[in-house]
Amino acid sequence: MSEIDRNALMSRLALAEETARDAGNLALSWFHQRDSLVVETKKDLQDVVSRADRDVEQMIDARIRERFAADGFLGEEFGLQPGSSGYTWVVDPIDGTSPFLNGMPNWCVSIAVLYQGEPVIGVIFAPCFDECYVAATGQGATLNGRVLQVDPARTLQNHVVGFGANSYVTPQAVGELLTALLAAGGNFIRIGSGALMLAWVAAGRVVGYVEPYMHAWDCLAGYCLVREAGGWYLPFNTEGDRLTKGAKVLAVAPGARDELKRIAGVECE
Amino acid sequence: MSEIDRNALMSRLALAEETARDAGNLALSWFHQRDSLVVETKKDLQDVVSRADRDVEQMIDARIRERFAADGFLGEEFGLQPGSSGYTWVVDPIDGTSPFLNGMPNWCVSIAVLYQGEPVIGVIFAPCFDECYVAATGQGATLNGRVLQVDPARTLQNHVVGFGANSYVTPQAVGELLTALLAAGGNFIRIGSGALMLAWVAAGRVVGYVEPYMHAWDCLAGYCLVREAGGWYLPFNTEGDRLTKGAKVLAVAPGARDELKRIAGVECE
Repeated sequence: MSEIDRNALMSRLALAEETARDAGNLALSWFHQRDSLVVETKKDLQDVVSRADRDVEQMIDARIRERFAADGFLGEEFGLQPGSSGYTWVVDPIDGTSPFLNGMPNWCVSIAVLYQGEPVIGVIFAPCFDECYVAATGQGATLNGRVLQVDPARTLQNHVVGFGANSYVTPQAVGELLTALLAAGGNFIRIGSGALMLAWVAAGRVVGYVEPYMHAWDCLAGYCLVREAGGWYLPFNTEGDRLTKGAKVLAVAPGARDELKRIAGVECE
Repeated sequence: MSEIDRNALMSRLALAEETARDAGNLALSWFHQRDSLVVETKKDLQDVVSRADRDVEQMIDARIRERFAADGFLGEEFGLQPGSSGYTWVVDPIDGTSPFLNGMPNWCVSIAVLYQGEPVIGVIFAPCFDECYVAATGQGATLNGRVLQVDPARTLQNHVVGFGANSYVTPQAVGELLTALLAAGGNFIRIGSGALMLAWVAAGRVVGYVEPYMHAWDCLAGYCLVREAGGWYLPFNTEGDRLTKGAKVLAVAPGARDELKRIAGVECE
């Protein structure tokens, strides 16, 4: 990555946070009237979407386009619009649509900005908790303004791992991964929003997050948060049309890194 | 169960709700200063407890004893004090101690009252969400005053199941149960508080809850809530010292009942 222009970064960071908060409040208004939403299914019965997801994504897209018309934009619901500035926004309007539609509080808005393929900004806003996680390259990570730093003393055995999966992964593979995690003395939670659990890695609420197959809009904002809080993540291939494809996701604090890589079947450095 | 005296029930219900809210607020003050708590382990590294759990249980015990000195009292941290009135309070001061100590919002206070061994009152208060779930025999179930009723149209395939386990259960058994659930087209969440996920069954946020081995203080308040909201639960043996032993726990809305019983290996009616 060539050197990033600080003003270009900071102006996008401000817009990302402002937009995540406004989008979250729009989503929250849908949440309070969720009984009126028509739920549609996508890949399978467990993969749901509603007008709220599309409405919130269009609002975010319009905001970005207004200020940075030459930036690319990839949203979960409407796909990729390539740009020419070197910057690409990667957005999940509502991560955790199933919790959202079922009335649970565990969902969030996730906004990442890539520069030459690297996540340089990550903002995750969880409206039901009024929690806004913000990170940018060289700026550190914060939660509602409080600096986040992962604790190197936490391990697989003395903390909990976040987990997620979808129907791209076989039931057997899920069972085997979780069995291996428990057999190693670990434990797991699964709140139904991968982006929010990645933010929880940065906040030290979980020691790591693993999901066998996840998309860019689910993980890139969280990855930026984890990196800026001192954690490690498995690089996500953003080149060409790989950006729109799924991949294995792993983010972890240093004390659990090697064990969680082994359990997740990650070979790379 | 012989007929229950309505005044005896309603006076305990009022005390249960008032006490759950006050206990939750006491726990919340510990939550905000959790970095000062010394974390101790019990059965294994993942089974944690702190002064906050004991402090909150003692506060609840004192409140009950002051009003109903002849009632029995079973708390997670200090065990059983038998009574002579036919009523026994069954209390988990902080259900979800691991989420609590790690800064997650997914924990609650759980208070059940048994009459002749049956859960006739269930109150669960989740302070981080300011949500109070209340139920009593013949009185229905409510969440912050709103009536709860499970939806018979929700099934294993079009909704999500709550799951929990501890180290009484082998990693293999956990893997097999979750594999079977996913293979049946189901999905699961696990927020780290079984009592709160049982309350979520009553609220329709999950279609059921399954945990292979759970104690009375974790499940009896939730069971009362689920029953009063129209769901089914697997009876928990409260006779003699069985009350202090663990057992399989299952609570479910009618549309997922038969399939979840099969997956959980439940044979009874």
